[in-house]
Amino acid sequence: MSDLLSIGVDVGGTRLKAGLVDQGGAVLATARRDTPGRSAPPAVLEEALLDLVGELRSVASATGRRAASVGVAVAGLVDAARGIVVFAPHLPWREEPLRERLAAGLDLPVVVDNDANAAAWAEHRFGAGRGETHLLLLTLGTGIGGAVLTEGRLQRGRHGLAGELGHVQVVPDGRPCPCGNRGCWEQYVSGTVLRRDGQELVRRGGADAAALSEACDGDPGRLSGDDLTRLAREGDPASRAVLGAAGRWLGTGLAGAVATLDPGTVVVGGGLSEAGDLLLDPARATLAQHLLGRGHRPVPPVVPAALGVGAGLVGAADLARSP
Amino acid sequence: MSDLLSIGVDVGGTRLKAGLVDQGGAVLATARRDTPGRSAPPAVLEEALLDLVGELRSVASATGRRAASVGVAVAGLVDAARGIVVFAPHLPWREEPLRERLAAGLDLPVVVDNDANAAAWAEHRFGAGRGETHLLLLTLGTGIGGAVLTEGRLQRGRHGLAGELGHVQVVPDGRPCPCGNRGCWEQYVSGTVLRRDGQELVRRGGADAAALSEACDGDPGRLSGDDLTRLAREGDPASRAVLGAAGRWLGTGLAGAVATLDPGTVVVGGGLSEAGDLLLDPARATLAQHLLGRGHRPVPPVVPAALGVGAGLVGAADLARSP
Repeated sequence: MSDLLSIGVDVGGTRLKAGLVDQGGAVLATARRDTPGRSAPPAVLEEALLDLVGELRSVASATGRRAASVGVAVAGLVDAARGIVVFAPHLPWREEPLRERLAAGLDLPVVVDNDANAAAWAEHRFGAGRGETHLLLLTLGTGIGGAVLTEGRLQRGRHGLAGELGHVQVVPDGRPCPCGNRGCWEQYVSGTVLRRDGQELVRRGGADAAALSEACDGDPGRLSGDDLTRLAREGDPASRAVLGAAGRWLGTGLAGAVATLDPGTVVVGGGLSEAGDLLLDPARATLAQHLLGRGHRPVPPVVPAALGVGAGLVGAADLARSP
Repeated sequence: MSDLLSIGVDVGGTRLKAGLVDQGGAVLATARRDTPGRSAPPAVLEEALLDLVGELRSVASATGRRAASVGVAVAGLVDAARGIVVFAPHLPWREEPLRERLAAGLDLPVVVDNDANAAAWAEHRFGAGRGETHLLLLTLGTGIGGAVLTEGRLQRGRHGLAGELGHVQVVPDGRPCPCGNRGCWEQYVSGTVLRRDGQELVRRGGADAAALSEACDGDPGRLSGDDLTRLAREGDPASRAVLGAAGRWLGTGLAGAVATLDPGTVVVGGGLSEAGDLLLDPARATLAQHLLGRGHRPVPPVVPAALGVGAGLVGAADLARSP
C-alpha cells in the first residue's frame, strides 16, 4: 500500500502548495513556496517545483513510505493529454512541456492538469461530489472557473478549453469585462463583483452603507469581498442584498450550463462560496425557476465544495495515481 | 457482411419514417406512415412501428440479406440507457418502455434515443462531423434542439437531458417563451422567429416589405419561414436583414455553448439551416468575436449538416448496430 502515496502540487500566481496525499485523499504532509516572479524564466519555476517535490519525498522516506507519482494543478490553460501548459496568465509558461520537464528530473510518472479540473476530480473522489458521475464544478474567486465531469470522467473538450464558463455572456451589451467583451457572467458574480458593489455603496454613502463604511474606515478602496461576506453573515441588510443579487446571477448562468450539460450535482467552491446559503439559496431558487420542464425534471442540488483550497493539490495527486 | 444491415425509424409528431441502412450509412430502402393521432393509445403507435420494421425486413429478405438490429429516434425526452421514452410532447408516450416493447415483438436488438442525439451520431459517422471526436449539433426548426458528442461518445447527461439548448436564456427579461420563461435562445433564432419577424414586416407594410408582402398576397398569416429564406436567397434586403439578425443571435448563444463544451466542430441542421451562409456567416462572426481568448484559441468551424432530414433514422440505425 505504501506505493500508493502521491504528491500533488498546486501552482498559483502567488503560491506553490504541495501535499503528500494518500489513496483516501488525506494530506499527510505539506510544503509551500512563494511562486517565483512572473518575469523569472520557466526553469526557475520548474526548479522550485522539483525542490518542493523532493522535500515531500524525503518526508515519505523518513516514515518508511514512498511517493510513486506527482500531479500538478496549474491556474491556466493546460493540454492534459500532452502534459503541456498552453497559457497561464500569471505564470511564465507558454506552450511549456511541463510533464516532460518534471518527469525527467524526478524519474516518476507526472500528470499536469488545469486547477479547476483537479479540484473537480478531488470533489468527485473525496468531497461534495462523491459518487456523482455527472458533476459541474464552479470556483468563484477573482473570476469564475469551471470544470465538467461526465460519466465519471473529466471533460476537457477538443482543445482542453471546456468549462471556461466565466466569459459566457449573460447580458447583451452588459458590463464591460477585461476580456474585451461585455456582459460576461463573471462580471455579475465573483469576488471582484462583491468588492466593487460594496465599494460603490460606501462611495454613495447612504444610511444603508453604515456597516460597510465602518468596516473600511470610510475608505472604499480598503473594502474587500471578504468584509462584505462577513457583514452579510452578521446580518447587514446592504451586504445581504449584494450577495443575493450575485446569487441570482449565479442561478441564471447555472440554468444555461445545466440545460447544456445536465449534471447530477453542482459544486461551488472558491472564496465566494464562504458566503454559503446567503449566496446559494438565491442561486438555487433562480436555477429552479429558469430550468426548462421544471416540475417534470430533477433540479440538480447546488452544494458548497467540501475540500477548500487544498482541492487542487489533492485532485492532482489522485489523477497522477490513476491517470 | 449481410448481417450488418440495420433498420432506423424516425418517430416524429406527424410522420414515421423508416430506412434500411447499411454499415456505410447508405439508405437502401425506405418506408413511411402517418403518425397515429396523439390521442391514440401507445399500443397503436407501437403496432405501426412494428409494421414499418416488418416491411423493411421483407425488403431485406427479398434481396437475400438480413436486418440485424433496429434503432428508433424519438422527438422527445429519452432515457437511452433504459430504452424508455420519458416524455414526448407530440406523442402519446409517457415513461414508455419502448425498447422492451419493440424487442419483444421483433426478436431483434433495439436501441431508442432522442432524435437530436441520433442525428448527431449520423453526422459524426457519415456526415459533416465525420472523424470529429468533439461535436456540437444544433437543429434549428420550430425551436432549437441540441446534442453533444465528446471523445466520440454521445453525452446524455445525468438524466438524459444534456444538450437542451433552446431554453438557455440569452436576454434577461427578454421575449416571452411558451416554456414560461423569458429570453430563451429559441425566441431569437428558429423557424418560428423567422416567420414571426417576416409577418411583422408585412403587417407594418413599409416599402422594404414589398417582396415579403407579395410572397403571401398581403396576408401575413400565410407567410412561412421558408418563404423568407427563399426571398433572402433571391436577394431581398429585408429578408436578409431578418436572417442576419437571427444569425447573430445564433453566434451569441453558440459562444456560450462553445465556452462550456469546447467542441471541435459545430454542425447546424434543421429547416433553418437551408438558409446556408446567409445565416451561418453572421453566426461565425459573432461567435469568433465573443469567444474568450480570441486570436489565441481555435474557433470551431460552424458547418451545415450534410445528411438532411434522414439523419435521425440513419443515426438510430447505426447506434443500434454498435450500441
